[in-house]
Order: sequence, then C-alpha cells, then structure tokens
Amino acid sequence: MPHMTSSPAEELLDQETKVLDKGFIRLIDYMGGDQRIIDAARVSYQGGTKAVSTTAQLIRYLLRHRHTTPFEKVRFEFHVKLPIFVARQWMRHRMGSFNEMSARYSILEDEFYFPDEYRAQSQINRQGSGEVLERSQLISSYTRTQCKGAYDTYELLLSEGVAREQARMVLPVNIYTQFYWTVDLWNLMHFLGLRCDNHTQLETREYAVTIRDMARAVCPIAMEAWDDYIFGATNFSRVETEVLLGFVRSKARASGQDLINYFSVVCQDNGMLTTTPSGKRTREFQEFLDKLNLNVTE
Amino acid sequence: MPHMTSSPAEELLDQETKVLDKGFIRLIDYMGGDQRIIDAARVSYQGGTKAVSTTAQLIRYLLRHRHTTPFEKVRFEFHVKLPIFVARQWMRHRMGSFNEMSARYSILEDEFYFPDEYRAQSQINRQGSGEVLERSQLISSYTRTQCKGAYDTYELLLSEGVAREQARMVLPVNIYTQFYWTVDLWNLMHFLGLRCDNHTQLETREYAVTIRDMARAVCPIAMEAWDDYIFGATNFSRVETEVLLGFVRSKARASGQDLINYFSVVCQDNGMLTTTPSGKRTREFQEFLDKLNLNVTE
Amino acid sequence: MPHMTSSPAEELLDQETKVLDKGFIRLIDYMGGDQRIIDAARVSYQGGTKAVSTTAQLIRYLLRHRHTTPFEKVRFEFHVKLPIFVARQWMRHRMGSFNEMSARYSILEDEFYFPDEYRAQSQINRQGSGEVLERSQLISSYTRTQCKGAYDTYELLLSEGVAREQARMVLPVNIYTQFYWTVDLWNLMHFLGLRCDNHTQLETREYAVTIRDMARAVCPIAMEAWDDYIFGATNFSRVETEVLLGFVRSKARASGQDLINYFSVVCQDNGMLTTTPSGKRTREFQEFLDKLNLNVTE
Amino acid sequence: MPHMTSSPAEELLDQETKVLDKGFIRLIDYMGGDQRIIDAARVSYQGGTKAVSTTAQLIRYLLRHRHTTPFEKVRFEFHVKLPIFVARQWMRHRMGSFNEMSARYSILEDEFYFPDEYRAQSQINRQGSGEVLERSQLISSYTRTQCKGAYDTYELLLSEGVAREQARMVLPVNIYTQFYWTVDLWNLMHFLGLRCDNHTQLETREYAVTIRDMARAVCPIAMEAWDDYIFGATNFSRVETEVLLGFVRSKARASGQDLINYFSVVCQDNGMLTTTPSGKRTREFQEFLDKLNLNVTE
Repeated sequence: MPHMTSSPAEELLDQETKVLDKGFIRLIDYMGGDQRIIDAARVSYQGGTKAVSTTAQLIRYLLRHRHTTPFEKVRFEFHVKLPIFVARQWMRHRMGSFNEMSARYSILEDEFYFPDEYRAQSQINRQGSGEVLERSQLISSYTRTQCKGAYDTYELLLSEGVAREQARMVLPVNIYTQFYWTVDLWNLMHFLGLRCDNHTQLETREYAVTIRDMARAVCPIAMEAWDDYIFGATNFSRVETEVLLGFVRSKARASGQDLINYFSVVCQDNGMLTTTPSGKRTREFQEFLDKLNLNVTE
Repeated sequence: MPHMTSSPAEELLDQETKVLDKGFIRLIDYMGGDQRIIDAARVSYQGGTKAVSTTAQLIRYLLRHRHTTPFEKVRFEFHVKLPIFVARQWMRHRMGSFNEMSARYSILEDEFYFPDEYRAQSQINRQGSGEVLERSQLISSYTRTQCKGAYDTYELLLSEGVAREQARMVLPVNIYTQFYWTVDLWNLMHFLGLRCDNHTQLETREYAVTIRDMARAVCPIAMEAWDDYIFGATNFSRVETEVLLGFVRSKARASGQDLINYFSVVCQDNGMLTTTPSGKRTREFQEFLDKLNLNVTE
Repeated sequence: MPHMTSSPAEELLDQETKVLDKGFIRLIDYMGGDQRIIDAARVSYQGGTKAVSTTAQLIRYLLRHRHTTPFEKVRFEFHVKLPIFVARQWMRHRMGSFNEMSARYSILEDEFYFPDEYRAQSQINRQGSGEVLERSQLISSYTRTQCKGAYDTYELLLSEGVAREQARMVLPVNIYTQFYWTVDLWNLMHFLGLRCDNHTQLETREYAVTIRDMARAVCPIAMEAWDDYIFGATNFSRVETEVLLGFVRSKARASGQDLINYFSVVCQDNGMLTTTPSGKRTREFQEFLDKLNLNVTE
Repeated sequence: MPHMTSSPAEELLDQETKVLDKGFIRLIDYMGGDQRIIDAARVSYQGGTKAVSTTAQLIRYLLRHRHTTPFEKVRFEFHVKLPIFVARQWMRHRMGSFNEMSARYSILEDEFYFPDEYRAQSQINRQGSGEVLERSQLISSYTRTQCKGAYDTYELLLSEGVAREQARMVLPVNIYTQFYWTVDLWNLMHFLGLRCDNHTQLETREYAVTIRDMARAVCPIAMEAWDDYIFGATNFSRVETEVLLGFVRSKARASGQDLINYFSVVCQDNGMLTTTPSGKRTREFQEFLDKLNLNVTE
C-alpha cells in the first residue's frame, strides 16, 4: 500500500505561499489524511463503529465528542519565514517541534517586516488594534529609518569583531527569521482555533489562515469538522445554557431592547451578575449578548 | 512570604479518602492556589488587568477565554490506590507524571476490586452500562472464584521460582495497584472534564469526583469557574449556533413536538442532516435536541 | 518534489512482523528520513554547517552533541498487537500518541500470551529474570488452565448481560490488545535506548528490537549514530572520568586483581565510596568495574 | 504533615537575585524536595529498595540509572526578568509552563541589556564567543545610541496612536521582558545540563547558574547527583568505550604524543575515522582527545 496522499496537497508540496511582505509558508511534507483518522479510530472502537456508515460521519462524530487521539495521526511539516514577534507568539505552542534559524551561527539578512498599514490601538480591547491610521506612510518612514539604523549598527558591531551572538542584540523583533515546524492535526486544530480568531494579532493571523488552507488540502473532511465544531462553535456557560433552555420553552416573545431586558432578568435569576456597581453591563453579560448577536440595540 | 496554603486543603493533606471497595486517594501536597493564578496572569497583562476588580472576576475571565497557562501554576501531588483497569484509563492522560508500583519489583497483594453491583450493557451507548443486574450476587461469586484462582496460580508460579515479571501475567485487571500522580490545575481540569462526565466508566468516575472535591479545597474559585465554563458548559456547533440565533429573533413560538419540528426544518435549512435514509433522526440532530433538553416528546 | 522515501522501508510497509506467540508490529507509515534531519538542521545552522561535508557526518555530529530537534522531524506510525502487561510498560512513554483498542466497545478475543519458557527470578536484579526453569512445561499448563478459566468467566459474565466494561475485569494482563502508535525519531531513540536494554523485560524487548530494525530501514544513518552514541555509549560519572583521565596519564600498569585494587584506591581518593561497612564493594564501584569490563577476577 | 520545606530554600523565597545589569530571578515557590523523590520511588519499588540504605544512596542510584519520574515530583516556580534574546533560548524548553509579559497589553519599559564587555567571535566554535574586545567601550556607545533611538521611535509610534502590538516591532531583542516559569526537577536538570554548559551563550548561562544554585537549596542531594552523573559526566561512544577498555587491559604505556598516536591507531582499528582527507584530525577524534584531556601536546 503506498503512502496516503491527497491530490490538492501534493500540488502544494514545496510551493512557497507568500505571507506579509517578505514571509512565506511552504508545506514540506505530511503524513496521513482523513482516512488515517478513521483507521486509527477503528483500532479503538473495532466493531463499535459499524453503526456510523461514512468516513465523514465518523470523523465528525469523533471531533464533536473530542475523541482527539485519532487526529494526532495526521502530521505536517512546514517551513515558515516570519518576523520574530510572530515567531514568539507561535512558539508558545509547545506541542510541536521547531527548528529555528540561529543568529549565533548565521548572520541575519537585512529583511524586516514593514506593514503597509499601521493600526490604531483598539478602544475596546486592551490587546487589540482597530482602524488604519491616516498617517501610516509617515509612521512607516519612521520605522524604516529606525530598522535601517539597527541593521547598520549590527554590521558595525560585526565589523568590530563582536560575536554574532552579541551583535544581534540590537536587531528589532520585526526582522525575519525562519523555522521548520512539525505538528500533528489535533494540535494544529488547537493552534488554528486560537490563531485564526480575530483576537489574534493580524500579522499572526495571516500565517494561521494560510496554514489552515494547507491543512484543508491534506484532510478536507476533518478540517470541515473543525470549522463546524471548533472554530465556528459557541460555548455557552452553565448559566447561559440554563437561560437558553428556559427561553426555548418559554411562551414569551420579545425583540430588541425587550429581549435584552428579558435575558438580563433571567440571567440574574440564574445567578449571573449582569450589571456592575456603576450600572453598566458586566463583561460576562455583554459577552452573552454578543454570542446571541444581541449586542446592537435594534 | 510563606507558601500559599488553603485551610480546607491543609486539613485534607495525607488523609486517605476511600474510593471503591479497597482504593483510596490521598492529597500529598499542592503548590499555589487561586491567588497564584492571579499573580501569574498579572505578569502577562500587567496594567492590562486593572479594569477587572476582583480575584474571582479575573480568574473567571481567564478561564472563560481559555487563557490557560496561569492555571498551570497550581500543582497537585496525589497518591492513588486503584484497580489496573482504572489506572489504564487514567494513564492515557499524558500531561502529568506517574510513579506506579511495579509488579516486577514487588509481589502484588491479594486485593481485587469486587463491585457490589453489576451493571447491564447499555442499550443506547456501545461503551456504556445501564441498570443494575438482578443476579449481581451470583455474578459476584463467579468473579470472586475466578480471581481467587488467579491469585492461587500467581502464588503457585512464584513458588515454582518463576520471575515476578512473568508470574504476574495471570493476574486480572481488577487487581489493585498504586501510583503517585503529579498534575497541574489546567491539565487536571481537562481530566475532570472528561472523567467526571457520565460517559466515563462509573469506577473511574468515582475517583475523578473525589479528586475534584480535593481540587475545590485547594482553589475554590478556579474550580467554580471550571464548573460554570467547562464542565457545565454546552458547546453548540456552527449550525446549531445559527439556528439558535435565528430562534432568539424569531417571533414564532411553539412547544413539544411542534418545537422539535421547527428545529428540524431550520436545521435542515442550515445544512444539518436531520434524518437518516431510513427516516430516523440522525445522531447529530438527536444530540442537538438533547442539548436543548427537547429529547422527550412532551 | 515527491515524499521522501526509503526503499527498504517501502518494502516493510503494511507487513506484519510477528512478535511473541500471537503479536505483531506493522509499519503503517513514516514521514522523512536521514535527509530530512539534515534539511531541518540546515535551517538552524544555515552557513554554519558548511564545514561538515557529508550527510552522515552532520547527522552523527548532531546526535553526538544532542541537537535533538532535527530528529523530531522523522515520524513513524506503527500498528502493534501485544499483551496488556507489555502495553502498560510501553504507554509510560508519554511523548507519542496511542489509539488503543477499547474493551468497553469491543469483546476481546480469546488470545493470551503463553511463553515457551518460564524464567527464574534473577538473583542479582530485583526486577529481572534469569535462567529458564526446567519445569516450564508444567508451569505453562497452570497458566493455560487459569487463562482458559478467565475467558470462560468473561463469557459467562457477558452471557449474564454484564456490561463489557465490567466483564473484562476478570481478564488477566497477558491477554492481547492492539494500538496505533505515532512517535518521532528522537522520542523513539529514547524509547529504544531504554527498551532494547537487557534490564527491560524480555517480552517488551522483543518488540523494541523489532521496532529498531524498522527504524533502521527508514533512516539507517541516524540509527547507526544511535547505536554508536546512545545505545552503545557508556556514561562515566564525574569521579569515574577523573579516575580514568588519571589512569590514562599514569605510568603504572597492572592487571587482574591488581588493576581492580588500583581503581579501588584511586576511586576512594577521588571521593567515591567503594566498600560498604560490611566490606563488600558498593554498588556504584561495582558498576564502574562492570563498565570497564573488570567485573570478573582474571 | 506539613508541606515539605528546606530551610535554605525558605530563605530564598521571594528574594530577587540579580542577573546581568537589570535582570533577576526570584524563587516564588517550590513543592517537594529530596525526601519526596524517595517517597515517589518507594511507591514503584516498594520492598525492592530495602537494600539501599540511605536517602542519598537511593537518589543517586535513581539518577545514575535514569529512573527519572521520581524527579518530576519536585516542582519550582520562578519569576525571571531577562532580555528577549535570552528568553527566546529559554522558551525552546517546552516541558514547563511560561507566563510572559505581553507587549500587546502593556507598554514596555525603557530597559535594555547593555553588556559591560563585548566578546569576539570564537575562532573555534561557529556559535560561540571568545576573548573580550578592547574597544568594548566604543562598541557599547554604538549599542546604547541605537537602543535609545529604538525606544524613541517606539514612543513616537505610540504617540501617533499606533497599536502597542505594532509599535513594539521596532524594539530590539535586548529589551527586558519577564515571565513566570514552572518546571519540575527532572526537566530543570535537563535545562541546566544544557544551559550551564560553556557552549551556551554567556548571558543565558548566568541565569542558568543562578537557577542551579536555587535548586541546590531545595534539593541538595539530588542536585549533587546531577553534578556527578549528568553535568560532570562524560559520555563515551561505543568505539571510544571499546578503545578505553582495550587501553585499560593493555600493558603498553606511553605519554604525550605517543599516547595520542596510540589512540589514533586503536581508534582507526575500531572503525573511527581519525583523519580527514587533508590529513587533519577529524572532529570526532579531536573530541575524544578532548574528553581524555589529551588535546594539548605535552
């Protein structure tokens, strides 16, 4: 039996897909695919899976119920070129294997990430960013000048004979680095669940989205299940679930602000704090309204 | 500054809490507590957490948004005595550290798990069990006789000079073993989320529930958040979420079978397969009704 | 570029290699090979590896200096059938992924491991075994009778309607189970270093040796390096190293007991305890003599 | 029973030990100690450890034979302030838990690492550094100017309203960050084995050495064993071991160059490549001579 392959994935192999201004992702290799997930599950369940008739139904069942080990059977090897600050977020994910370029061994190239657009600090999210700044071009010139100076200083230090490991100290975190990353599908799904989300810094998200599309080429059914049961899913807390179940059975109907008032009362009755001492909505209640798409007054 | 401790946890230290007929769990040690989670989070967020005023609010926020690393700062050390078949399920959890008794070094004691009650195979769940069998006492006598014979054979083999590592081959998986288990709070939460669930074999669940209560003594706020946002939470898929959001805004009202019909139509419209070729509900649709507590016709 | 393959490994794919009386190992898939290790290392070292001219030299250098992440780039998928007591030792290795057959879902087959030979308890190693017992055939008949009884009881319980998860309690740990195991080369090397060693129970070692040969088919150069730098290597402690360095430079020559006396004196001078209060060699000194192959008086 | 503590460790708790010019390490908490290692081992070995009489002997035996899980029972929590380039090396160690300060949430302080001395690129080690450069003061002024400019640009970008997550792009990798690090003793031993070694960049080594001293306060016996059996140990390859064993038994004596010639001949006879095509010593043979302290011609 030959290795399990998928045609769309075979076409991707070794192609550099561009990300940001100078980065890329390249799918170097992969092992397994949708069918491998099934094969591994059948070892566990043996006769127990007969009832589920199709590959898609079994894969979807496994993911829905978080039977995750079969998804560890699919494995990816990526080659990524990316700014250091993106690499730093990425490498917080411990359940994979990295081989990163070392600035102790090699002299780094004069390659920095320069965004086309600079984003304003988000007003609602302490860690996020918002609309594009009008003065992006001016800001860009400040950044470019600073990074050019940093690289000049780096070269100056090297020419003074400073060891590479010390000279690189002056290089900023938007300089490009590279790594090989090996990861299995389950841990990749976890990574993508966090990193495709719009709470993630845009630069990192662009890499995540590219990786997601590559994973779809390797195991389309599993990744569709990821979209339905992980990425696109909504988690309602114990109280929120109780409130929703009550709502489903209640005869009362409302809309707009009345609906919000209804939920506010019922949430409070079920023990959720809905208003702060100063009379504003609590963060938790606001998040509940957001999940129900009731955040905007109608 | 002394070590962080919690009075209820201090009282538990080194007490054996009985589980099953001959097993136990003993909390040997723990490190950290609710406050440690906060301390670790504040390193990450620094000024960013000022808005959140109380310990409980911050811990709940962290867990709700799956900022999980602060929960890895709390650590537990347990001593557990349990049947081998329970140990086998437990040790599938790789993110902790086990020191188990070795039957190559030591002669195992004549201690087997004998349930008070034998349960019938579940009719609805291929891996589960159901009501208690009437002939439990008779079945128990079969089991006891068999296990006695196994231990006799074990002793016979030892008396013949057979190495312990080979002689233990005849011992059944309900013989008791022991281990030390070190685990952090986040991985414990994951373990408890799976093992306190009623899909887990009852014998294993009894251990999980005991561990859960010990964790509550160490970090009550974090464990309450676990109850609300993990254990008691409900995950609705992408389609289910869309259907729910539509329902919240719809004016239509229904109850009983009409409500089920409503959801069946809307789920289908949103792309979920709700009936099998033979006309029965699909497993996925049935699960959705179960989540909404609409499984029983009213 | 096609997937990296190795001809000897391709021939192994999907072949069941028999282990013990009823077990097997089957290489399901693999990803990467010797060249992939090099590719990953070159990302890290870039120009830094020019000096090392050949693939073999670089791989050997990496392993000798425990630059281990490039070895994580090679990945294996095995299908293994084995007795539960062997599986239990195996699954202590956490850095891989297992999908094991579940006795809650499926009825186990009437397949037990019956050794051809029973070994005596080792006199020198509390966890080991020694020479073959003369009464092996008699012992075998005890074991077979006991296991037959266990399976009969298992079937009796099932026929009484006992849930599979409870009925399996009476089955002994020499019954066969199966799993899929995914592991990378570096963690496999660690596994093989421990499990091919003669401190490992013979039954487990037979599986390890079979796996080792399969790994050699996939990445012969890396596995040869493993043989030289891990499996066949000797670790001398700080004191032992000092003693050896002194010996290399000393003019004195001796043989047999005189040599042992020499080392005894020098080890003591360097702070190693060589004799117990009762006048026997300490375990540590004995181990040193063993490493130097001086254990037998000449 | 109270928590296991050690007086020297208690005194360290919460004290900041300075490292580099502006960094520190603070031991926040620890769990367990030498005795806990013993307790965990006794669960595994039960009666099997009776022969070994003292705590120290058992701990040393466990480490010598790489029975590592008992060492995972001791746990540390550190608070570390360090330059980003040191943090990047540190965080390659995946078997612990990090909570790092986020430059998306918080504005970084104007704190950079400025070495007192700049080191030349090593002539013998592509990744290392050597003697101190005479022009260190001049080089330092270049670095300081560059870093001041970087921070000014950072502030300029912030004042332009650029989101923190983008503004930090211009900051160099010698700016200070902070993290909480939780790690168990076994993984710490591995970390220290690599990071106290003189192949590690000096800046990182200074942190490692400080951590090592803190670990010694918590579990002195285990750390002494680490010194003897891991850090101070020498690993001889299969061939090197054979050569050494032959030497021990040989009557021949030599010194200086004659000794080197002897080893060269015997190594070749045993299959090691000792000279390159151009007639120089191979790296592997040179390393062997280094281990034997025969690198300098006498």
